Amino acid sequence: MQHLDTLIYAGWIIPVEPENVVYEQHALAIQDGRIIAVLPSSEAVRYFSARITYRLTTHLLIPGLINTHTHAAMNLLRGFADDMPLNEWLKDRIWPAEQTHVDREFVADGTKLAIAEMLRGGVTCFNDMYFFPDVVGEIVDQVGLRATLGMILLDFPTIWAKDANEYLKKGRQVYETYRDHPLIQTALAPHAPYSVSDESLKLAKAMADELELPIHIHVHETASEVEEAVEKQGERPLAHLEKLGLLSPQFMAVHATQLKNDEINLLAEKGVHVIHCPESNLKLASGICPITKLQKAGINVALGTDGAASNDDLDLLGEMRTAALLAKGFSKDARSIPAATALRMATLNGAKASGIDHVTGSFVPGKSADVVAIDMVDIETQPIYNPLSQLIYTVGRDKVTDVWVAGKHLLKSRTLTSLDIHDIKAKTYLWRDKILSTSSIANGETP
Amino acid sequence: MQHLDTLIYAGWIIPVEPENVVYEQHALAIQDGRIIAVLPSSEAVRYFSARITYRLTTHLLIPGLINTHTHAAMNLLRGFADDMPLNEWLKDRIWPAEQTHVDREFVADGTKLAIAEMLRGGVTCFNDMYFFPDVVGEIVDQVGLRATLGMILLDFPTIWAKDANEYLKKGRQVYETYRDHPLIQTALAPHAPYSVSDESLKLAKAMADELELPIHIHVHETASEVEEAVEKQGERPLAHLEKLGLLSPQFMAVHATQLKNDEINLLAEKGVHVIHCPESNLKLASGICPITKLQKAGINVALGTDGAASNDDLDLLGEMRTAALLAKGFSKDARSIPAATALRMATLNGAKASGIDHVTGSFVPGKSADVVAIDMVDIETQPIYNPLSQLIYTVGRDKVTDVWVAGKHLLKSRTLTSLDIHDIKAKTYLWRDKILSTSSIANGETP
Repeated sequence: MQHLDTLIYAGWIIPVEPENVVYEQHALAIQDGRIIAVLPSSEAVRYFSARITYRLTTHLLIPGLINTHTHAAMNLLRGFADDMPLNEWLKDRIWPAEQTHVDREFVADGTKLAIAEMLRGGVTCFNDMYFFPDVVGEIVDQVGLRATLGMILLDFPTIWAKDANEYLKKGRQVYETYRDHPLIQTALAPHAPYSVSDESLKLAKAMADELELPIHIHVHETASEVEEAVEKQGERPLAHLEKLGLLSPQFMAVHATQLKNDEINLLAEKGVHVIHCPESNLKLASGICPITKLQKAGINVALGTDGAASNDDLDLLGEMRTAALLAKGFSKDARSIPAATALRMATLNGAKASGIDHVTGSFVPGKSADVVAIDMVDIETQPIYNPLSQLIYTVGRDKVTDVWVAGKHLLKSRTLTSLDIHDIKAKTYLWRDKILSTSSIANGETP
Repeated sequence: MQHLDTLIYAGWIIPVEPENVVYEQHALAIQDGRIIAVLPSSEAVRYFSARITYRLTTHLLIPGLINTHTHAAMNLLRGFADDMPLNEWLKDRIWPAEQTHVDREFVADGTKLAIAEMLRGGVTCFNDMYFFPDVVGEIVDQVGLRATLGMILLDFPTIWAKDANEYLKKGRQVYETYRDHPLIQTALAPHAPYSVSDESLKLAKAMADELELPIHIHVHETASEVEEAVEKQGERPLAHLEKLGLLSPQFMAVHATQLKNDEINLLAEKGVHVIHCPESNLKLASGICPITKLQKAGINVALGTDGAASNDDLDLLGEMRTAALLAKGFSKDARSIPAATALRMATLNGAKASGIDHVTGSFVPGKSADVVAIDMVDIETQPIYNPLSQLIYTVGRDKVTDVWVAGKHLLKSRTLTSLDIHDIKAKTYLWRDKILSTSSIANGETP
């Protein structure tokens, strides 16, 4: 009989690998933060004892969800600008608010709010793109979840850096700080082809190659972005990025709502990952990423919520549902993106896109114990014919009760163990008042 | 100082009428099940005392949500068939299961499960179409919420009736039973133009005219439905229904995903109501109802979840969000269906479609006190710049804490006061086992 750190008995376990499998009455054996085994409860009783044993008989366990595109700190701007198209939303509302308010404290408080929301919704890993990634890193390290810090790159000065060289220099410092961290990695995060020059993109590519890091970028988010690029440089952004040599299996193309068939073939050929953010794309009327076609072309499609200013939540369970529903409606094929595929997009595919699928994304022995427990006992999820279907089509994130990252219990019966939720709320109230006081909303304009 | 039954102080109140208004620090005054006033809390303190006073300072009050199209009892088939197109889903899975299992008990237990789910999600009124409307009526009466019972009509025999005459005769009995009920009304509910003959539709129309009742019907749900009608009768179903004289302000056209511009004009001209069920339409890949165009044409658009076998929830808060997001994405206009319009669709527009907007659907003095309290204190809904935006884009139905219908407190701090949730769960387990035991799923086929 082997003695373990943790043994979790569950009503159901969905390992993601193998795909489309649901184990009933199984247990997850955890040692040193890693998965040792997924096995029938009847066997677990005989082979294992543990320092802590959980008996979650009405629960379903899934691998921790991976939010492969977000701007965490923007949680403080949730609901600040609604029912507006991307250009107007960004240029008239979001950028001015950011210019006035974003500093280290904003990023610290906003990121904590976002992480609290994500953990309470079963997200154990996020791929961030925002200012002050060093601050985000400190918080991620304190809280104990998993993240990819984006070394943001823009061609205009912000509070974070004044030019491409400084952005990259500061990014490199973040990389150096976290290069050996077990839960934190970094990625080059040039904002978009329209906001970063060719010269800067080349520098980012060189640095990505040197440090063997992913490149995380918004691309083909809207039709107007593509049209403007064609006007300015005579070709579509993806064609241009290909010429610059950026497209590769290290490339995460976020949004990609505007794709011709030859572009889909190009992405497939180059091994590019597409990060689908359906709710943000719908809300900003940016377009719809053709994920049914992308999947058929063999492209790895992961899921992101985008920032809370355009979604307006970091609810990856909801995003899976939207992705599955929208793919069926948009492709006119009700078989498109079945439940198992939606779950894979929010777990293993996100890990693959981030280059960490050897570490997380499925319950394969040896991988990190990044685990989410979902209580299926409430009437909203009953009856249960197929727990995988219930997970995608009926579970609300309020049913997430427990979350572990690398075996550490970060959400315990819905209580966050490494974040002070009262402090987060208090600071959020303060930021709201401060942001409102400098905004036209305060003067009676509908936000 | 006037003494009332109930006084509810709230952080915010959204009355729906007037539109796009949020009252801060207001109170709702209730007497004899009706709204007496919506007024600033500072005034309510001076003018009113009450037998019961609630102080919901972190809450938002909205009028009870109206689910304008559902098949409540089908909750027992939630998740029974997924990732399949409508025809296959209906003919290969749902109809056979129904033929085997539907009886008075199935409808009673399924409807209770559905009502429990709806009340816990802020739904105070539903427009039902299913077998045994008499049983649905009994339960609605016992529980105390509001409903429109569909007098179902099909052209093939079922356990409920053998032919059109019997369907209508039994429907009329249901009408007679509930004609003076304060919370229950009835509607003619012919299933669809493809499943009900012209002769039967004419009988339904005559009865609707005689009894002054709405007609509630699935129409233009899928492209193939329309194509088949054109093949069989040489015209599209709406044109055919128009010839039969059915289109009028008493007509509720459910789904309507296939609409040409002249059909939109026809619906507008005839005062037809369209019941939009976006999640069901997406999941079954039926098509997308062009609600942005319908709104512009002046058509009253209400919202329905459809049955849980095709959604898979009866979550009208979620449906509002999907409707708002999808309309923006589909119309390529981020201004389409702003938050206030989405809320109106799920409240006042539903009441209008059902012919009960003089009774419910908004907080207008004299209307029934159908009230939903939503707690906005959790981090998922913070910060709050505009509570209306938060309601549509961030609130999950788990934030619904209290529900009143006609002043009766049916959900009290998330506890149902007129339903036994343990009994509902126990019966749901039994039905699941029974349905699985006669299904191919039991033989290992993925559902």
